[in-house]
Amino acid sequence: MAEFKINHVAIVVPDVDEALKFWRDALGLTLNHVERNEEEAVQIAFLPTGESEVELLAPITEDSGVAKYLAKKGAGLHHLCIEVEHIEAVLSRLVAHQIELINDTPKLRPNGIKYAFVHPKSTGGVLLELYELPK
Amino acid sequence: MAEFKINHVAIVVPDVDEALKFWRDALGLTLNHVERNEEEAVQIAFLPTGESEVELLAPITEDSGVAKYLAKKGAGLHHLCIEVEHIEAVLSRLVAHQIELINDTPKLRPNGIKYAFVHPKSTGGVLLELYELPK
Repeated sequence: MAEFKINHVAIVVPDVDEALKFWRDALGLTLNHVERNEEEAVQIAFLPTGESEVELLAPITEDSGVAKYLAKKGAGLHHLCIEVEHIEAVLSRLVAHQIELINDTPKLRPNGIKYAFVHPKSTGGVLLELYELPK
Repeated sequence: MAEFKINHVAIVVPDVDEALKFWRDALGLTLNHVERNEEEAVQIAFLPTGESEVELLAPITEDSGVAKYLAKKGAGLHHLCIEVEHIEAVLSRLVAHQIELINDTPKLRPNGIKYAFVHPKSTGGVLLELYELPK
């Protein structure tokens, strides 16, 4: 396995069904499924693209982080998620390079994925998510 | 081969060497090479990431498209490039869905790659590049 790969590219949109008219119907990507993430107050459509996924995120409340982002910056590319083999080792290396992390230690999703976000001010403007998949 | 895959995610930065301090030195991606693209007036660093690449783009003139983008929007995610098997067929399907293209017909790079850009107004804010690699 490669040490790094792109897990997903997340795109913030006002409405998932409307966005699917382009990404699925016109472009031709396959829709795997749509789920609601109540914790982050978003609806997410997952469209596998090779070993990665395109994810369409739409806010489901008006005061969520994604809703505020959409209101401020408009629809478009939101974050990049890179999969790593050992997330703790990568986070330690980032800290040693004085990189500002949003999550100093990995958080755990119910599906077993460990994740952490790196602050855009340390990446050159990119909200970067790191993933370690369950072994 | 999958019908679609992510070829690259392009990030616009003020300075490639400065950006490499994060993406290569701290995060740990491998730098394949850096090249100057005189036509688009950018310097590009290529960092393979699984079957895809992270590309860092920095303007080399003050009046290039990328320089204007950087001045207006700041550093960050710039465009997404999806590789397709038959670019003409995909462009025809997009036109049939009333999608606005920046390039109605594919352009050809010296390395044999056919490419075309889709206008962000039709994708929900994402500048989308399509690639067909030489067979």
